Amino acid sequence: MNDRFLKACRREPTDCTPVWFMRQAGRYMEEYRRIRLKHSILDVCKTPELAAEVTLQPIERFPFDAAIIFADILLPLEPMGLTLTFDEGEGPVLHNPVRTRADVEALRLIDGDELRFVMDAIALARKALAGRVPLIGFAGAPFTLASYAIEGGGSRNYIETKRLMYGEPAVWHRLMDKLARVVSGYLRHQIQAGAQAVQLFDSWVGCLSPEDYREYVQPHVRLIFDGLKHHNVPMIHFGTGTATLLEIMKDAGGTVMGVDWRVPLSEARRRLGRDVALQGNMDPVVLFAPVHEIERRVQSILREAGDDPGFIFNLGHGILPKTPIEHVQAAIDLVHKLSQR
Amino acid sequence: MNDRFLKACRREPTDCTPVWFMRQAGRYMEEYRRIRLKHSILDVCKTPELAAEVTLQPIERFPFDAAIIFADILLPLEPMGLTLTFDEGEGPVLHNPVRTRADVEALRLIDGDELRFVMDAIALARKALAGRVPLIGFAGAPFTLASYAIEGGGSRNYIETKRLMYGEPAVWHRLMDKLARVVSGYLRHQIQAGAQAVQLFDSWVGCLSPEDYREYVQPHVRLIFDGLKHHNVPMIHFGTGTATLLEIMKDAGGTVMGVDWRVPLSEARRRLGRDVALQGNMDPVVLFAPVHEIERRVQSILREAGDDPGFIFNLGHGILPKTPIEHVQAAIDLVHKLSQR
Repeated sequence: MNDRFLKACRREPTDCTPVWFMRQAGRYMEEYRRIRLKHSILDVCKTPELAAEVTLQPIERFPFDAAIIFADILLPLEPMGLTLTFDEGEGPVLHNPVRTRADVEALRLIDGDELRFVMDAIALARKALAGRVPLIGFAGAPFTLASYAIEGGGSRNYIETKRLMYGEPAVWHRLMDKLARVVSGYLRHQIQAGAQAVQLFDSWVGCLSPEDYREYVQPHVRLIFDGLKHHNVPMIHFGTGTATLLEIMKDAGGTVMGVDWRVPLSEARRRLGRDVALQGNMDPVVLFAPVHEIERRVQSILREAGDDPGFIFNLGHGILPKTPIEHVQAAIDLVHKLSQR
Repeated sequence: MNDRFLKACRREPTDCTPVWFMRQAGRYMEEYRRIRLKHSILDVCKTPELAAEVTLQPIERFPFDAAIIFADILLPLEPMGLTLTFDEGEGPVLHNPVRTRADVEALRLIDGDELRFVMDAIALARKALAGRVPLIGFAGAPFTLASYAIEGGGSRNYIETKRLMYGEPAVWHRLMDKLARVVSGYLRHQIQAGAQAVQLFDSWVGCLSPEDYREYVQPHVRLIFDGLKHHNVPMIHFGTGTATLLEIMKDAGGTVMGVDWRVPLSEARRRLGRDVALQGNMDPVVLFAPVHEIERRVQSILREAGDDPGFIFNLGHGILPKTPIEHVQAAIDLVHKLSQR
């Protein structure tokens, strides 16, 4: 088995730097688009055979060092009581957004078993991977989930989210607590089903000040990581635009910290210390550049990461739908080649 | 004359902290919406009487310590050769985006006089202000202008912008150089017409890594600030999401640095030193919170800013269209009251 990824998560030496890309099972791949012609995102997520197939697609094609289960961070919101659709070109829509105390109280505290199809997909994917590379499970973090649940979809300024947070902190904390409990159970089920590492996606938390993060988010994220510790699997804590949040995100938990391209890896290492691994941090748009420029940037990231074990090469955010496929191949090969010990 | 703002820009002591809000002449005001019922944004910008009237609206209504001329950062792109419209609900659209070397070469190097209507509006606004508060002029910074010119409008991931930057650096630098020259002349004309301070809006530069900022942006911004120095007016250098860029943005120029809510002011002060003033940094969404919460946050920002002169209270980004008007009044009053020396 290729265990570079798990070793790097544990800050153990590896023969070269492991690499995977967020959203590596996605629209930039023709194989994926072919499946999506016939099936909606939710169909793929809810059909374990399809989810497992899509999870494997990038592994069949590229020398990635980890697979990540195909799913959507919003899946838990459906059994909690929200109506979720993916509208063409508009992204996710939650048709009954959470805005009041009553809305929050009405949310069901599911235990994760309602998402059995994800666990089944994990089991199938593990089997199909047959030990080639480890499988990562994941969930959205409470703040990011809350922002979708409150806004009713994606957002630019998070007005309703922050209005609830600032204006009705008790209701906010109740919502975050419910989400944290659900996410905690969901990730536990994923680990039990075979996920060998988990990533918590707090994709939009970078819209908060450090003070707000500490007050309105940190305790709920801590609950999740504390609850998962005893499983002893790597826990990746990811966000974007988190340059002023890194230390307090680490303090909330995680054994691997995600870093985006706005923070040089040497700075992240200096600020976070040596007791966590780092994952990142190439700008996804670099994959649109010519290969010689991709090479220059892979080199620069590896140099910034330094010689210590405990680094996983990734993008700073998900791979973009129109990314040229041959640049993905080139980037992975360059990471492996240029990081040979 | 109320010269608190200019004094604070120069890091001179003031009786209390000056305050103004980016986009303070905007849709949250009924007076503004009434004008916009009859006139498009571009009409208002191009009719000096209307632009001056709108500039004065927030000054008539609130005790702001500065006015900012009503204009749009994209105005210079029109005489340079781009077709600009504001489509309802979609924001600005540039119908012939700049994507190739030929597109860049075709851009006209205007000297600023083509935007005479802005200078006329500045002269009219100065007259109407009659010394009550100083008037700020402004322009978009080259990167932010380039991003609109290349993408053809607003953007989420800046794929085309970065593709040009990474893929054809010579073309990129040529575009940035043209934009920097145009902006430089435009701001010079504004100062000559009566602008008592200028702000350079690099609103979207926070999507770049420090390395990219240094290589692809900094020299062009420096050209602008260097060219304006001898006018001896305060020069505000503004961006959002710039937590890892602040030092190199300061190095490019400006006598006042804009800071958003992601960076605590005490940290900004520590990192930037005492030879610049700071402007910021309340999250615009805080104005949607109850007044007691606004008060807590004004207090906290003033505490973070400390006792040194050289601080201008502002939002970390433009005021949002649906902001409650009475909260704007409350915030301004609180800044003045709680910062009394």
